[in-house]
Amino acid sequence: MNGAESLVETLLAAGVDVCFANPGTSEMHFVAALDSHPGMRCVLKLFEGGVTGAADGYRRMSGGLAATLLHLAPGFGNGYASVHNARKAHSAMLNIVGDHADYHLKYDAPLKGDVLGVTQSVSDWVRVGADSRSVAADGAAGVRAALSKNGQIATLILPANTAWEQADGPAPMAPPAPLHRPRPERIAAVAGVLRQPGAVLFVGGSALYGDHARLAGKIAARTGCRLMADLFVPRMERGEGAVTIECLQYPVLESAEILRDATRLVLCGAGQPVAFFAYPDKPSTPEPGDCGIIDLCDPSMDIGWTLAALVEATGATDAVPLDLPRDLPELPAGALDARKVAQAVAALLPEGAIVVNESITAGQPLADATRMARRHDWLANPGGAIGAALPLAVGAAIACPERKVIAATGDGSAMYTLQSLWTMAREGLDVTVIVYANRGYQILRGELANVGVQQVGRNAARMFNLEGPELDWVALARGHGVEAERVEDAEGFAAAFRIGLSRPGPFLIEAAC
Amino acid sequence: MNGAESLVETLLAAGVDVCFANPGTSEMHFVAALDSHPGMRCVLKLFEGGVTGAADGYRRMSGGLAATLLHLAPGFGNGYASVHNARKAHSAMLNIVGDHADYHLKYDAPLKGDVLGVTQSVSDWVRVGADSRSVAADGAAGVRAALSKNGQIATLILPANTAWEQADGPAPMAPPAPLHRPRPERIAAVAGVLRQPGAVLFVGGSALYGDHARLAGKIAARTGCRLMADLFVPRMERGEGAVTIECLQYPVLESAEILRDATRLVLCGAGQPVAFFAYPDKPSTPEPGDCGIIDLCDPSMDIGWTLAALVEATGATDAVPLDLPRDLPELPAGALDARKVAQAVAALLPEGAIVVNESITAGQPLADATRMARRHDWLANPGGAIGAALPLAVGAAIACPERKVIAATGDGSAMYTLQSLWTMAREGLDVTVIVYANRGYQILRGELANVGVQQVGRNAARMFNLEGPELDWVALARGHGVEAERVEDAEGFAAAFRIGLSRPGPFLIEAAC
Repeated sequence: MNGAESLVETLLAAGVDVCFANPGTSEMHFVAALDSHPGMRCVLKLFEGGVTGAADGYRRMSGGLAATLLHLAPGFGNGYASVHNARKAHSAMLNIVGDHADYHLKYDAPLKGDVLGVTQSVSDWVRVGADSRSVAADGAAGVRAALSKNGQIATLILPANTAWEQADGPAPMAPPAPLHRPRPERIAAVAGVLRQPGAVLFVGGSALYGDHARLAGKIAARTGCRLMADLFVPRMERGEGAVTIECLQYPVLESAEILRDATRLVLCGAGQPVAFFAYPDKPSTPEPGDCGIIDLCDPSMDIGWTLAALVEATGATDAVPLDLPRDLPELPAGALDARKVAQAVAALLPEGAIVVNESITAGQPLADATRMARRHDWLANPGGAIGAALPLAVGAAIACPERKVIAATGDGSAMYTLQSLWTMAREGLDVTVIVYANRGYQILRGELANVGVQQVGRNAARMFNLEGPELDWVALARGHGVEAERVEDAEGFAAAFRIGLSRPGPFLIEAAC
Repeated sequence: MNGAESLVETLLAAGVDVCFANPGTSEMHFVAALDSHPGMRCVLKLFEGGVTGAADGYRRMSGGLAATLLHLAPGFGNGYASVHNARKAHSAMLNIVGDHADYHLKYDAPLKGDVLGVTQSVSDWVRVGADSRSVAADGAAGVRAALSKNGQIATLILPANTAWEQADGPAPMAPPAPLHRPRPERIAAVAGVLRQPGAVLFVGGSALYGDHARLAGKIAARTGCRLMADLFVPRMERGEGAVTIECLQYPVLESAEILRDATRLVLCGAGQPVAFFAYPDKPSTPEPGDCGIIDLCDPSMDIGWTLAALVEATGATDAVPLDLPRDLPELPAGALDARKVAQAVAALLPEGAIVVNESITAGQPLADATRMARRHDWLANPGGAIGAALPLAVGAAIACPERKVIAATGDGSAMYTLQSLWTMAREGLDVTVIVYANRGYQILRGELANVGVQQVGRNAARMFNLEGPELDWVALARGHGVEAERVEDAEGFAAAFRIGLSRPGPFLIEAAC
């Protein structure tokens, strides 16, 4: 058994049986080891940003861990933006990055780079494989690190010879480190705070879905506090029967207005809310100046335990969370715009769908319209690096093959990682992609105004417009093997969306709006 | 005047008047400054790997410096692989990377990342703008650093408020640092070495084209030494009338065979030749065990001065370099393969063309066939990070609008940066793209065998094949606004190639082979 085989067997024994990959020569022994272990499902993506983004989506919906296989420093670089997003989503991820054989690293070979430097700049845990007999244990340590603290980025750098030289066998895996918990007296104090006027329980992570969300809902129902979350959440349960959680907005002044009466923000599973960007003469954070922030349980701590303790401390055991009702809009008609796309999606969204939202300027209408649709999971991008929607959709669809995935994306965003369409076709993934073809970086037009520029000249216009030529998303999709349709009115959109929903494989809608 | 304006004016005064860009919100003031300075040509690319790769191509063909404009850590990450390639090509590049306003960095905003860490891992010079009154001087220092040592990667991190706050005006630029030169007694000693049997003058950088190549050719003609270079050169003059320079091969054992009789390698403008990858039981370097390496003038030193000094020391002033003759192949016929594509390109290649070669497994036939075609410049990828061809072609075409650019690329490679097609269409760039549609990472099939695996199973096959579905490059090109044609025989290829040559704008040929 060589090092690569010992590593693959270690991963399989640890329950890691999906590997998103874009390998190169330095990973050939690892590929050979995957080949002799068909229990590992290998998913090829034609660009590394798709690899790491899919692993993020897989983690968010499976709760498990996906491995990625990447090729040296440039391969990791190509995956960097999606690793950044995954890190902000607190997703567990193990990146296996091949490198040159250690004895070859003293030379300046073409692909030699600072693998350690680039990986450390966006990983929580990095290790360089020292030799073939230790890489199995390194892999086990990497899985453990990735699964610790509710999810971290772990990166194992695998010099080629540590893969091809002899190993002893797979390594056992230790359970993740225990999660830190708030001190009991802090729970009691916060229980008192939450009963006061203006108290906000600001939640994130696992508090946004499933049992933990229900605990949070009980606390809000009992204490009368507001239950709130960030806008760009990794995963949130929404629609009929989901616990009601109020979200902030993208413009910091709108979030400030929402939080106008807040006296305390109690953080549980979330960091402090902060403006996406700073702007001249606008605040960096949305809370009122006299609103205190109580960092009860940060995203790396024991969110479930904390919520359960708060339920007990507030006497909320029998409280009934305020659930969202069903409120479906009518199907819209006439010329298409982002609001009508949102209405049609909300009206037709099937029970149990997974909605990946990276619609940027069209995102708020979609969020508003679907909030009381049929029950669904909602995946947004807490990292803000665009190009997230298509890769996330790939990973979510592989994690949940029984569920329909809707990926809503701006045209500008989708261009960063459009190669993910090919993987959707190859793997037969059940994804309906909606591309808002507004033919521009629409948000930047607004952001230029935000920084005080009212007149847009030629250089700026050419930075924001995706016209001249116009992108043809039907052709782009077909080039990747995905059927597609362009629609220009609301009736056409609804008809196309029904086609997407009725098919078990991928389908793309270019929505002219 | 704000900091952004002072920086743009500094760049313009330093002769930097092209900016490849993919900006975001944190760069809005810089975009506004570009808008009010129309002398700066802004070229939008829809993915950052295209931005940095185009800057590399621009530098290689213009000799000047292109600025890039990138958005925070993830934006630089997306551009990382092409920066890696540019660094290996010793291209001068100034990356301007926007970051959050400095006072916003204490918060964990979605797009906050380790900009310094990721940029330092692939840059020669990095500076974080300290305030708005110093960013003009920072920009001047960045240009100087980029232009020093024959070309370096300089990265200026621009916190948003240093762009929008008040500045004093543009900053003057100091000339690049003087290049180091070998000591005169070393020149004299090497002149003696080059006259000995088995001596090789191994050149790179500016010694591969123009006046410096002619100096190298004189030395070889006078001393009888072999004049050689790496296979993956940033830029090399080839074809009729170019100085004859012999190249190494990709397989290290073939290079070892080529160098079998070498007794000394004298490096001038090049590093030591090294195998692309290490393999079990193969050497890391190709030279014989008793061949000495003389590091006379590394790629950062004064290559022109060194060659001129060697010409004098060897008495080669009046020597006549051995030039390549013209030897055009017949136009091929019948079923298409990589060799016939190469023959057709060689037969039809116009005088003064720029050929960007990233054909991977089809690259050697193309290199062989075109070596004695009409005079052209040849750009390869010294960094090895794939996805280089289309961005390099964009930059070369912008640098040399009067010349025809041919970009030859594998289908796997082209998928990494296919968004560059859109920029070719928007800017009307005179590029004919040849995609070798072998529908696979053909080289990895060979590399798996190289590491000793003879049987390819399901997981490996699915890592190497780009089938199921097949990519449709005609659709992909049209989706980006570029006309395209698929050809399946040699006659069809030649006809399509003539169409590409006859049009002033971009055209893509999907060559089924």
